Amino acid sequence: MNSWEHTFIQSHRVARLATKTPAGAPHVLPVVYAYDGQHLFTPLDAKPKQVELRKLQRVRNIAADERVALVIDDYAEDWAQLAWVQIRGRAALHTEGTLYDTGIALLAAKYPQYATMPLVGRPLFVIHIEKITGWRADRA
Amino acid sequence: MNSWEHTFIQSHRVARLATKTPAGAPHVLPVVYAYDGQHLFTPLDAKPKQVELRKLQRVRNIAADERVALVIDDYAEDWAQLAWVQIRGRAALHTEGTLYDTGIALLAAKYPQYATMPLVGRPLFVIHIEKITGWRADRA
Repeated sequence: MNSWEHTFIQSHRVARLATKTPAGAPHVLPVVYAYDGQHLFTPLDAKPKQVELRKLQRVRNIAADERVALVIDDYAEDWAQLAWVQIRGRAALHTEGTLYDTGIALLAAKYPQYATMPLVGRPLFVIHIEKITGWRADRA
Repeated sequence: MNSWEHTFIQSHRVARLATKTPAGAPHVLPVVYAYDGQHLFTPLDAKPKQVELRKLQRVRNIAADERVALVIDDYAEDWAQLAWVQIRGRAALHTEGTLYDTGIALLAAKYPQYATMPLVGRPLFVIHIEKITGWRADRA
């Protein structure tokens, strides 16, 4: 991976996560995330009961097809500053284990907002990165 | 549609467009767009030759499945200000006609950047909106 893409992923605060519904329709929402160089970690917004968890669209989508894409980008009115990084990979919902602990720790370190709404116990999507594609207007 | 969602779409400058590849994998990139209340219009970045046009990932994806999703959102470190609008619909590539002319005119009016890189002649995705879903932290 080019180092600017690595730095870009590390330094940004929000990504947009694309999945598809079990019926095959695209779905996309903003997410916060942490990055360890090989995985992205993105938490569920709350700590739902199991029955509620299975109803969440993102959970149902990834249960049906683990493939995901995320984009992290800069928009600016000076279009010479536009840039994006697209990440493709496979997601799985974790509730415990080494990757779970790593992801929770990285998210808590990145987002001080979690100091008042603890992450521990929330399900976490762990995304194994398979491909990173970047584009910058200043190098296009 | 609730009026805040209409206003939110009108007032923002960038969306993230999710499609899926012919093999069914999610794909997502930032796009500029215009909105007429029923359609979103988003142009291709350049005026490619026909053979190049068919190679563009977004073009191939939408040729295989017209369903798309877009998200427009506000990220802020004060998470009480988070908000997003997700739009689902069906996309078609237009190179002429009434919707094409409408979309080109709205994009040129919204983005002064196009004054120096004319839009006329570029293929345009016209997205017929089927469903709009909004969420705001201050109303959640």
